[in-house]
Amino acid sequence: MRRPVELPHAYRLLNHGPTVLVTCAHAGQRNIMAAAWNMALDFNPPKIAIVIDKNTYTRELIEASGSFGVNIPCRAQKDIVMQVGSCSGRDWLAKPEHDKFNAFGLQTFFGAEIEAPMLEGCVGWLECKVIPEPHNQSTYDLFLAEVVAAWADDRVFSEGRWHFEGHDELRTLHYIAGGMFLTTGETLS
Amino acid sequence: MRRPVELPHAYRLLNHGPTVLVTCAHAGQRNIMAAAWNMALDFNPPKIAIVIDKNTYTRELIEASGSFGVNIPCRAQKDIVMQVGSCSGRDWLAKPEHDKFNAFGLQTFFGAEIEAPMLEGCVGWLECKVIPEPHNQSTYDLFLAEVVAAWADDRVFSEGRWHFEGHDELRTLHYIAGGMFLTTGETLS
Repeated sequence: MRRPVELPHAYRLLNHGPTVLVTCAHAGQRNIMAAAWNMALDFNPPKIAIVIDKNTYTRELIEASGSFGVNIPCRAQKDIVMQVGSCSGRDWLAKPEHDKFNAFGLQTFFGAEIEAPMLEGCVGWLECKVIPEPHNQSTYDLFLAEVVAAWADDRVFSEGRWHFEGHDELRTLHYIAGGMFLTTGETLS
Repeated sequence: MRRPVELPHAYRLLNHGPTVLVTCAHAGQRNIMAAAWNMALDFNPPKIAIVIDKNTYTRELIEASGSFGVNIPCRAQKDIVMQVGSCSGRDWLAKPEHDKFNAFGLQTFFGAEIEAPMLEGCVGWLECKVIPEPHNQSTYDLFLAEVVAAWADDRVFSEGRWHFEGHDELRTLHYIAGGMFLTTGETLS
């Protein structure tokens, strides 16, 4: 079940380096893209850093709305990650499906604080508001954001930590290259 | 065996989100610390982003030298990651060991382009030169750097991709919190 994550624990959703799906919406348009280049930036208030290429449709919607969703997909969603990561939202605008969500049959829910749709079936979610840093954005495609709400599937994340044992289909994905991913493996303590 | 990684493939060493060890040296002093908050920032020339807290001794040496090493530790080095991540280099300055390398018996080698020592036994290494961005550094503890040389253990990384099968002790570490790590698991394609 999806449950809120206390904001001081939000960084732990990204701490182990998962590949994420970025969602965004503005003025009736919405999009979703894959992003391996993300990291936590601060504990409390939680902040993150993420790279959003200036050629993406997602970039356009994020710059217009000032917010985005970070969705942490799991092994069961590997094909979705490849699908949404292999085309542009612009490719669908003039087609009957209109966006990637319709094109790939993606179910969404609304977060608490932002307008971006959040993807069902993920194992963690962060609602993010852009911290405007025009130099970083234009020079490095680098976005900094404050996490204003966070959620996780309590089957695999609770009390501030991941516990994937017994839920192999819910393990996070870590992109290598060329369509290959690593999943998380054993927990060491 | 440690082999050079072509610079356009350097980002792939960090793409799957490993926790790293940052090494640094300046004027006869050296240090090493753990850093889970790192990511690739660009392909070619390769750049990375990493968070280096302003209270760390590492920060002092990096700001003085303008360079640092990113060492990607493996499962066999879990205890080293916890050791160097649980104390400050400043704690050792007045002791006979003088630094963490001596205190914990860490073997190092010299990279090609920077003065920081690189840690033996890791599975990947990036030699980095800071891209000065004073606002990011002071406001967010965020450092951007260009990767000027990269190396990997060819038992687990070659031809631009990770392949950990058959080498469980060389799997990368992904920090959760509270002394717990995830290792990489299955490869999916």
